[in-house]
Amino acid sequence: MSLPSPAPRDEAPRLPGEIFAREIHEQPDALLSLLEHEAEYAALARAIEDRAPTLIRFVGHGSSDNAATYGVYAFGLLPRLTAVRDSISLSVYYDAELDFSASVVIALSQSGRTPDVVAYVERARARGAFTVALTNENGSELEQIAHATLPLAAGAEWAVAATKTYVNQLAALALLAGGIAGRGVELADAVRATAELLSRSLSTFDAGMRPIATSFAYVGRMYAIGRGLEFATAREVALKLTETCRIAAKPLTATDLAHGPVAALDSLFPVWAIASRDASLPAVIEAATRVRDAGATIVGSGSAADEIDASYVLPVPAAPTPVLAPLLSVVPGQLFAAALAQTKGYDADRPEGLNKVTIAR
Amino acid sequence: MSLPSPAPRDEAPRLPGEIFAREIHEQPDALLSLLEHEAEYAALARAIEDRAPTLIRFVGHGSSDNAATYGVYAFGLLPRLTAVRDSISLSVYYDAELDFSASVVIALSQSGRTPDVVAYVERARARGAFTVALTNENGSELEQIAHATLPLAAGAEWAVAATKTYVNQLAALALLAGGIAGRGVELADAVRATAELLSRSLSTFDAGMRPIATSFAYVGRMYAIGRGLEFATAREVALKLTETCRIAAKPLTATDLAHGPVAALDSLFPVWAIASRDASLPAVIEAATRVRDAGATIVGSGSAADEIDASYVLPVPAAPTPVLAPLLSVVPGQLFAAALAQTKGYDADRPEGLNKVTIAR
Repeated sequence: MSLPSPAPRDEAPRLPGEIFAREIHEQPDALLSLLEHEAEYAALARAIEDRAPTLIRFVGHGSSDNAATYGVYAFGLLPRLTAVRDSISLSVYYDAELDFSASVVIALSQSGRTPDVVAYVERARARGAFTVALTNENGSELEQIAHATLPLAAGAEWAVAATKTYVNQLAALALLAGGIAGRGVELADAVRATAELLSRSLSTFDAGMRPIATSFAYVGRMYAIGRGLEFATAREVALKLTETCRIAAKPLTATDLAHGPVAALDSLFPVWAIASRDASLPAVIEAATRVRDAGATIVGSGSAADEIDASYVLPVPAAPTPVLAPLLSVVPGQLFAAALAQTKGYDADRPEGLNKVTIAR
Repeated sequence: MSLPSPAPRDEAPRLPGEIFAREIHEQPDALLSLLEHEAEYAALARAIEDRAPTLIRFVGHGSSDNAATYGVYAFGLLPRLTAVRDSISLSVYYDAELDFSASVVIALSQSGRTPDVVAYVERARARGAFTVALTNENGSELEQIAHATLPLAAGAEWAVAATKTYVNQLAALALLAGGIAGRGVELADAVRATAELLSRSLSTFDAGMRPIATSFAYVGRMYAIGRGLEFATAREVALKLTETCRIAAKPLTATDLAHGPVAALDSLFPVWAIASRDASLPAVIEAATRVRDAGATIVGSGSAADEIDASYVLPVPAAPTPVLAPLLSVVPGQLFAAALAQTKGYDADRPEGLNKVTIAR
C-alpha cells in the first residue's frame, strides 16, 4: 500500500529534476537549521550518557539505513560506543525475545511513518530499550511511540529521492555522538563550518558534472565503493543512481569488491569510488587498482580522489573534522545522479514506481 | 596482492564448471562431516554460555559475511542473543577503542587467512573479547590468534566460488547457537535430516534448471530478494550470480526493494525471490507483487515459492526445523548459477579476476 506523494510547494510548471536539484542546493541551509536545535541534541546526549548503554541500535530503510551505516562509525569514533544497524525482522516478524535493557534505539525515518520501523520501536521499548526517533515531520506515529524525538529540521523535502534529509541525518548523528562524547559544541561548530564549505563548493561541483554524465548515458550497471566512514556514501550514491537513473548500482566495501564482485567488471561496468584522506584510504586505492585491471572506468570522488587512477576526478574539500567527511563526499554523487537523470530523460523528482512515503512491509 | 589458486584434485581434463557443480552436489556429505564434530560444538557452546556474553560479533567477507547474516537470525532465534555483523574498519583502520569485554567474536574465513579478519580478531582479543575462529583449513593464522577454533569440515573446496563451505557455515552457526540454547542435540538431528532431504532433492532441483538458464542468457542485472532468515540466501545467490555469471546482482530485503530500487526494474531486469513459509512471507509476497507491477520477471524459490506470482517456480522442501530453511533454499540458486554460467560460456570453476584465497585489504 502506498500513500500519494505530497505535492510540490507550488503548482507552477517545473522542469524534470528541478526539485531534486534545488534540494541538493538547499543542503547548507538545512544543516544550519539543524544547528538551531543544538540544545535539544545536547540534552538528549546527556540523557543517553546517563543510561550508559552497551549497545546503540539503529533502524531505518533506504537512505535512512545508509545514514545508520554512518552512525556506526560516528558512535564508534566519538563516544566509542558499539553501534549496529539492527535486524528489524527478528523483532517484528519473529518476535525474538532479545534483551534490550542496556540498549538505546535510534529510529531513522524521514516521515516517521515507516511501518516496520514503528513496529520495531514499539517492541524494543516493551523489551526495555530507551527509544529515540529522528524524523523530519512533527507529530508522527514514531514520535508518539518513542521516549524522545529529535528534529531533523531539513525543511520539507518534495523530491522522492532523499538528499537534504540524508545529509541532515548524518549531521544529527554526528551531533548526538559528539554530545555523548562531551564534544557537542566542537561538533556543532564543525557542522557549521561544513555547511559553509559546502555552500562555497556547490558551484564547483556542479561545473564538472554535465560532460561526465553525458558519457554515462548508456550505463546500466555500476558499483559504488568506499570503506569505513565512506561506505555510507557508497551506499547512498548507489541508491541515488538506482532511484533516479535506473542503474543497477551496487554498493560494496573496497575489500568486499575483491571477494567476488570484481569478476563481473568490464569496460561497460564503471565504478564510482569514494576516496577520502583517512586510515581506510590504502584499501580504496588497492581496490581501484583492481577495478582498472579489470578494464572498468573509475569515477573518483572524495578528498583524496586525486590519489586513485580515475578517468574522472571529482575532488571534494577536506571536512573541518574527518568524521564529517561523508557530509561533503556524498554531494558530487547526488549532483551526478541529477545530471545523469536529465541526460537519460528521466524525471529525478518523481521516479516511476516510488512514492515519498513508503508504506511497504 | 593475491595468492595463486590451489590446483584441482587431479590434473585430469575437466569441463568448465565441472568442479563447481560437483561441489554443490557434495553438500549433503559435507554436512554429515560437520556433524562428526558435534561434541566440539557442544563444548564450545557451553564455554560461550558460561561467559554470558551480551553481544555476538561476526566478521567475514563475501560468502562468509553472507553466512554471518544468517548467524544474526540463528543466534537471535535460538539462544535469544543479540548478534551483529561487526564493522571491521572501526577496529582495523581506525583503531576505535571499543569495549569488547562482554562480547564473543566469531570470525568466519574459509581459509583462515583473510588479512583484515585476522587483524580484527587480534584487536578484539586485546580489548577483551572471547574469540572463535570458524575455518575450513587447519593451522591457519586465524586459528593461532583466536581463543578457540571450530572446524567447518566441508572438505577441500577447489572451485573459487564457495558452495559447500557456505552451507557448512550456516549449519555450524545453527549448531553452535542451538548448543548455547541447550538445544544442540535437536539441531544436530535437524542438520542430519536436512542433509538427507538435500541429498534426495538435488536431482529434482537439477532437472528444471537448464531451460530457465537458457532464457536468462542475456540478462546483465538482477535483484535477489528475501526477508528475515532468507536475506542471507538472497545475498549468497546474488554473489554466486555475480561471481560466476558476471551479472550485476544486488541483494535486497523485500522491504528495502520498495525504498528506491524498485524504480530501476523493467522487463530486462529480473528478480530472484526467496519465499519461505515463515513469518516474513507476507513481506516477500507484497514485494513480489511490486516487482510484477514493474514488469519484471520473477524466479521464485523456497518452500513457499508457489505463493508468489512467479514466471519460474523452483520449489524447495520445508526444512526439518524452520531455522534451517536457508541450508536448502540456497541450493537452487547455486545450481542456477552453474547452469547459467555454462549457457553463457563462462567457467564457473575459475571466474576471471578471482582467486580462492582473497588477500585484499
